Amino acid sequence: MLYIVGFGPGNFENMTNAVTSAIRSCDVIVGYTGYTELLRPLFPGKLYHETGMTRETERCQKAIDLAREGRDVCVISSGDSGIYGMASLIFELAGDFAEIEVIPGVTAALSGAALLGAPLGHDFAIISLSDLLTPWELIEKRFRAAAMGDFCIALYNPGSHKRGGHLGKACDILLETHFAQHITSI
Amino acid sequence: MLYIVGFGPGNFENMTNAVTSAIRSCDVIVGYTGYTELLRPLFPGKLYHETGMTRETERCQKAIDLAREGRDVCVISSGDSGIYGMASLIFELAGDFAEIEVIPGVTAALSGAALLGAPLGHDFAIISLSDLLTPWELIEKRFRAAAMGDFCIALYNPGSHKRGGHLGKACDILLETHFAQHITSI
Repeated sequence: MLYIVGFGPGNFENMTNAVTSAIRSCDVIVGYTGYTELLRPLFPGKLYHETGMTRETERCQKAIDLAREGRDVCVISSGDSGIYGMASLIFELAGDFAEIEVIPGVTAALSGAALLGAPLGHDFAIISLSDLLTPWELIEKRFRAAAMGDFCIALYNPGSHKRGGHLGKACDILLETHFAQHITSI
Repeated sequence: MLYIVGFGPGNFENMTNAVTSAIRSCDVIVGYTGYTELLRPLFPGKLYHETGMTRETERCQKAIDLAREGRDVCVISSGDSGIYGMASLIFELAGDFAEIEVIPGVTAALSGAALLGAPLGHDFAIISLSDLLTPWELIEKRFRAAAMGDFCIALYNPGSHKRGGHLGKACDILLETHFAQHITSI
């Protein structure tokens, strides 16, 4: 069985019971090194298969191969594995292998919002600032659309230290769009 | 202490460890009757204060009053309490009472997506079809904006049996907007 597991913000408290059960009972935990380092102290004595960033395809293929051989495997993502996580990639690679279960988790929009109070109290959009796999023009277009629709916006900004300018550009778009709306309403 | 708790889709498995701890250790659980009915078999022997739909303000005020008196209180929402849940209302009513902690949960967009596979693999918008407190025109505007921004859309449709026509209207907007985009791109 292949479990695609979202373990939340990284502490034991914000994992679901299904996540802790799956991790405890599986034979192998497969994940990005930064994430296995978070889990190892919480689940010691487990077998971990870990690789670095940009080796996602190889890692997910390994997880599928292990599950095909009959092992119970957890592929881990932080947050929720469906949101910028490994779930899409696993389904792309799995072919006719169907012994797959997605176990949802608390994505960063929710755990971050909980720390702030209740900033996402109504309809909202989740947008990633990462332009590794998404053209920047599409990201800009989504910011404009979200501003025009008066959505709250939860911003994912992984590797933000490498992309200092993107957050500023995104804020400029929001200010421009809201300013344009204001002018229209006058 | 007042805990604003999101208990996820309703089963024990998809609650976080922090949620089960808070519910087990609190003095009173305050919530909508439909939700306390879900929790009572999982947490028997607790004290529940429950009221029906439309009595949210009264119920949240009661929870704040109990917490001010020194009780540990859990105000419960299904999913995540920040997403169409009780968190905003509690903060509006709490005044200077600051002994509040929001404990995030798995919102329906995540638990629903996990059942389907990985439909929210990229930037997405969460939109509610409920027009009880939001003008329908604003909901339509958000659908148009989300379609123009090429967002995945996770649709919340509480009380859908009373609002049969809204889902159809939303789909029409998405088809129109995508069709318009297609024409533009030709």
